[in-house]
Amino acid sequence: MRPLHDRARRAFASDNEAGAHPEVLQALVAANGGHQLSYGADDYTARLQDVIGRHFGAGAVAYPVLNGTGANVLALQSVVSRWGAVICAEGAHVDTDESTAPAVIGGFKLLAVPTPDGKLTPELIDRRAVGFGDEHRAQPQAVTITQATEVGTAYTAAEVRAIADRAHELGLVLHMDGARIANAAAHLGASLAELTSEAGVDVLSFGGTKNGLLFGEMVVVLNPDRRPGIAADLCYLRKLDLQLVSKTRFVSAQLLALLEADRWRSWAAHANAMAQRLAAGVRDLAGVEIVHPVQSNAVFARLASDVADQLRQRFAFYDWDRRDGVVRWMCAFDVDEADVDAFLAELRRLLGRPAESREPAVG
Amino acid sequence: MRPLHDRARRAFASDNEAGAHPEVLQALVAANGGHQLSYGADDYTARLQDVIGRHFGAGAVAYPVLNGTGANVLALQSVVSRWGAVICAEGAHVDTDESTAPAVIGGFKLLAVPTPDGKLTPELIDRRAVGFGDEHRAQPQAVTITQATEVGTAYTAAEVRAIADRAHELGLVLHMDGARIANAAAHLGASLAELTSEAGVDVLSFGGTKNGLLFGEMVVVLNPDRRPGIAADLCYLRKLDLQLVSKTRFVSAQLLALLEADRWRSWAAHANAMAQRLAAGVRDLAGVEIVHPVQSNAVFARLASDVADQLRQRFAFYDWDRRDGVVRWMCAFDVDEADVDAFLAELRRLLGRPAESREPAVG
Amino acid sequence: MRPLHDRARRAFASDNEAGAHPEVLQALVAANGGHQLSYGADDYTARLQDVIGRHFGAGAVAYPVLNGTGANVLALQSVVSRWGAVICAEGAHVDTDESTAPAVIGGFKLLAVPTPDGKLTPELIDRRAVGFGDEHRAQPQAVTITQATEVGTAYTAAEVRAIADRAHELGLVLHMDGARIANAAAHLGASLAELTSEAGVDVLSFGGTKNGLLFGEMVVVLNPDRRPGIAADLCYLRKLDLQLVSKTRFVSAQLLALLEADRWRSWAAHANAMAQRLAAGVRDLAGVEIVHPVQSNAVFARLASDVADQLRQRFAFYDWDRRDGVVRWMCAFDVDEADVDAFLAELRRLLGRPAESREPAVG
Amino acid sequence: MRPLHDRARRAFASDNEAGAHPEVLQALVAANGGHQLSYGADDYTARLQDVIGRHFGAGAVAYPVLNGTGANVLALQSVVSRWGAVICAEGAHVDTDESTAPAVIGGFKLLAVPTPDGKLTPELIDRRAVGFGDEHRAQPQAVTITQATEVGTAYTAAEVRAIADRAHELGLVLHMDGARIANAAAHLGASLAELTSEAGVDVLSFGGTKNGLLFGEMVVVLNPDRRPGIAADLCYLRKLDLQLVSKTRFVSAQLLALLEADRWRSWAAHANAMAQRLAAGVRDLAGVEIVHPVQSNAVFARLASDVADQLRQRFAFYDWDRRDGVVRWMCAFDVDEADVDAFLAELRRLLGRPAESREPAVG
Repeated sequence: MRPLHDRARRAFASDNEAGAHPEVLQALVAANGGHQLSYGADDYTARLQDVIGRHFGAGAVAYPVLNGTGANVLALQSVVSRWGAVICAEGAHVDTDESTAPAVIGGFKLLAVPTPDGKLTPELIDRRAVGFGDEHRAQPQAVTITQATEVGTAYTAAEVRAIADRAHELGLVLHMDGARIANAAAHLGASLAELTSEAGVDVLSFGGTKNGLLFGEMVVVLNPDRRPGIAADLCYLRKLDLQLVSKTRFVSAQLLALLEADRWRSWAAHANAMAQRLAAGVRDLAGVEIVHPVQSNAVFARLASDVADQLRQRFAFYDWDRRDGVVRWMCAFDVDEADVDAFLAELRRLLGRPAESREPAVG
Repeated sequence: MRPLHDRARRAFASDNEAGAHPEVLQALVAANGGHQLSYGADDYTARLQDVIGRHFGAGAVAYPVLNGTGANVLALQSVVSRWGAVICAEGAHVDTDESTAPAVIGGFKLLAVPTPDGKLTPELIDRRAVGFGDEHRAQPQAVTITQATEVGTAYTAAEVRAIADRAHELGLVLHMDGARIANAAAHLGASLAELTSEAGVDVLSFGGTKNGLLFGEMVVVLNPDRRPGIAADLCYLRKLDLQLVSKTRFVSAQLLALLEADRWRSWAAHANAMAQRLAAGVRDLAGVEIVHPVQSNAVFARLASDVADQLRQRFAFYDWDRRDGVVRWMCAFDVDEADVDAFLAELRRLLGRPAESREPAVG
Repeated sequence: MRPLHDRARRAFASDNEAGAHPEVLQALVAANGGHQLSYGADDYTARLQDVIGRHFGAGAVAYPVLNGTGANVLALQSVVSRWGAVICAEGAHVDTDESTAPAVIGGFKLLAVPTPDGKLTPELIDRRAVGFGDEHRAQPQAVTITQATEVGTAYTAAEVRAIADRAHELGLVLHMDGARIANAAAHLGASLAELTSEAGVDVLSFGGTKNGLLFGEMVVVLNPDRRPGIAADLCYLRKLDLQLVSKTRFVSAQLLALLEADRWRSWAAHANAMAQRLAAGVRDLAGVEIVHPVQSNAVFARLASDVADQLRQRFAFYDWDRRDGVVRWMCAFDVDEADVDAFLAELRRLLGRPAESREPAVG
Repeated sequence: MRPLHDRARRAFASDNEAGAHPEVLQALVAANGGHQLSYGADDYTARLQDVIGRHFGAGAVAYPVLNGTGANVLALQSVVSRWGAVICAEGAHVDTDESTAPAVIGGFKLLAVPTPDGKLTPELIDRRAVGFGDEHRAQPQAVTITQATEVGTAYTAAEVRAIADRAHELGLVLHMDGARIANAAAHLGASLAELTSEAGVDVLSFGGTKNGLLFGEMVVVLNPDRRPGIAADLCYLRKLDLQLVSKTRFVSAQLLALLEADRWRSWAAHANAMAQRLAAGVRDLAGVEIVHPVQSNAVFARLASDVADQLRQRFAFYDWDRRDGVVRWMCAFDVDEADVDAFLAELRRLLGRPAESREPAVG
């Protein structure tokens, strides 16, 4: 088969519009050929368990799955009852971008709290951690945080620890949606364990797709003691939730490629660097205001809608809050310096055209 | 990354223990690089729609998904109400191998009918198509048939048509679980359309994984008029059912590789031929009885349990009905003549050893 | 308000077409007036717990609910996982008359076994108790039996014990749908405990509506040790399953009326006696064949469809199996001897008219 | 059976701690005796349909159900898809007091908006009515408003109309949780139709339990054209949602007692008058601040926690917001002037004791 698309076109829309890193494809080739037991009893998944132990601690167990919504719904479902509620930040992926799956498939209620920066805190958790023992209320049983958050900010290990401590005091399990945990860890210079198992996270959705895999995520149980029986339960739930892959070796091989030789960090660090380059390039531009700290691979900026729309004609990206004039520029693992520089040049050209100094749009 | 497994080992356990066909990996390479819109708005999925139209008729629409259970649950859910029931053959994958997903995720009840050969008929459907209009009963709304069946038999186009006519008379939608439709079509010398859209099938789960893909199936709506609104509904349901893939191009590219140049047929025909070779090799053996017609890539045989267990030490395969002494020998796309001949030689050796003539085991 | 209906008309259609026993209405009057805590914290529910302890043993705990389907779904849901399966007899109410509620609300799969007389046995359970530990299969976790069965037969205490022993050996919980347990106990001359807690039943749906209540059933946990945490879980599940009643005192007062002074037994014994009278009256009639032992308040008989249809013009009753010419004559608590005798007289008249000797219909 | 409780004790905790109005019990007696078809095919339910037509317009259809959570979940489920979302006010019963039932049983996501007074507006709806056509987002399909609201305020007909118009412009169905619609209508001097069908409400949960019934609510479809097929769907869904009553005549008879002779209004008006008397009695008291307009049968007040706790020793009532020092005093249909005056006397005594002038508690 020959390519049907323009393999040179790259943009700033989403890190899942990128393809796969060539080393990931090589891993698939290596894992191919011959017969291997299906449904996770293969040699690649066995090796993955070893690697997970090295990254997250000896007790950690990985459950390869198919996509991010699947990982989140499965991970949370494994730690809540049918009458359970999960506290999250307003705007969390699980609250806004997973349709009714958390409710209908996961069977839990989300209790969302407004936050200034996408980050929960012990105090914000307390606002929704109410009604314990009241049969009329969905029972708070878990907290979920996103690392890096949907607005590109990263929780420090100390922030995660504070949340974990409060969650555990309240009897809640702490889940982390780590769709971009690699970007957060690269930004903070932290290991994966420092931001998860060592900081008190109990269950993790570890994301691969946004960091160079074709597809594939995994649920990682970091603290199996938090919910007795969780390991067996996850096997059944993964099947039930339509997340069990017959040829699991091809998910595990990709995850291995990512986790071995710390490729996860170097690929994420590159994406982050591109975001920093982009942010640096706009920081002194009149007419563009960066609205969140750049702590991963995304830049959130406010600019005039007409400029944004013209810019979009050459470089795809998303509105984040149309009323407020905020856009999201996302750097994938394969975006390079030339891409960023071309983007910046075009933005400067557009801003310079009508007036030397433009005001950001107001919602 | 280097291989961790023995790439020469092949067995007769399951067609999903095989890896991916090399041409499938080439398709992934071709589809890689550059940015493509995610969630199905890419060029490969667009091309897939064209190809689907050529194979199944102009109105057919494809929804790439992640795995077979996902395809079945999604396809059936898209044609039934919350109070709906689906008639199936006892032993159908959806009834025995999909955990509680049809009930809990799909939200429908299965009405299973015993069959002699895994195949439904109009008469068997009538046995469960009762209770229409009675609010106490789950309402029959669909029929699902498996092609090829779980015991390796294939429905002819005329048999499918008779079922479709009866289903439609009763107001039921006809779904086909085509996890191995390629094998059935290759066996019958029929086109995909002849066994589906032209025979009255309304919705199809088209399987790729068992025929050489890494992963990837699709739901194909063949008759969108059967359930108004099904096309839009499937988009929402696919997301809800955790079957939406962000980098859909990589599923579609694999399906394209399979469907273009009729690779689906040649790969399946090869697997079928291996099953025929295996069947021919045992047909005259005292001590082995073939219990179902070999109409796809599997051979079901009855033989003494001790022989089966010794044979299994060199060639993996599954018991089908331990009490009845029936085993399943499944030929994947990559099994070759030497594999089959080695298997037959070992079987002959084992049967010859204790006695020239052995009796099949009795349950 | 004045009556809108004919208060003299009684028939043989269903024991829930009868109204409430006058003593039940008196109990409502007694429980009325003043304020009582809602949701089960009232004095009547407290007293009910005492009475339950006397009937079923000290550890038994009652959860009043609203209807029979609610009781069954809730009881079973409280003892199974999201991937659980429940073994039942084909034709069980939970399998045929509860719509998709067991699947969709309860979240479990039913594994139905054909039986000759509506009764499970250890051997029949073994036929479906398979696949333990296989993530692809819904996991058998409970057995449910109906007392009396849907065809009017009653399990003896020894039969229940044999089932319980086998279920427990397999790690399964035993649930009894006791919609007509009163009729079975009255027939067998057994206490409620002898047929339930003492025979190994773990959880019971205790029916009141078919035995003279306006409405109201209860889930009774007989063996709280079988599933740790079941007591608390049932509180949350009852709310979630829409079975929690705000003015619970009015359910509990009815159940108290039924259970105190052994009214449950005398009302059921009367209904049973009417069924025996009816059966005795038809036993020597040519043209009528009783097809199941009469062990509760229903008579199942085969007779010519034209006779059945003419009989139905004066006395309502249901076809049980139209093809097989089998009908069900159900005696409610309020049917009296004159009702039965009038029914028999009409039946004799119809049978005598066209020919002295008629053959039963053949399906 | 003799009463087990103090029939003279009345308090201000909840209108479902009251019993049933004596005329309701008389209706049960009238409906008792003889056999009536079950599951809603009885004469009382037929008459109920007539009465509903008179109150709500000729096209209105009633579906008697068992409890308020059941009515809400069923009503909303009947108008949304599996991927649907329902916009509600923060603090709505469906959001805070129905456990996970809306998610797990109803299968929809709630989009809650903060409000100053428990009332939605077109503008507040617009804040959550986003994401149409985006498969990643639960699709807004309905709006639900509570009449009277959880804080005792009542929507005027004009306010309902404005909401209905905006909902319908957006393609959303308007549902009203009318658990206390009688109190709102009595307060406003409006007919039931003026606040519902004539104001654009499409589906109504009509509450009876809080206004003098033993139990019993109904879903009323006011505008069957809004969702084609809703009438048939509701029959199946009611069964599935465990809300179908076998002896429906006893629910319908109670609802008839309530709706005929406008008892609903006189009972609710009395409860409202008691709330006004209570409010008038505290309005000039230093140390008590009424925090919401009294527009139904509840008074929400802020007072010192120690005073509240002492008052509670003689008269039960609930904290509404413990941190903010707000309590709820709810007047049931059977509370009389002497009850209110005794309550006020005790409150005055407590407030007068420590200091002539007390400050309300601050959270």
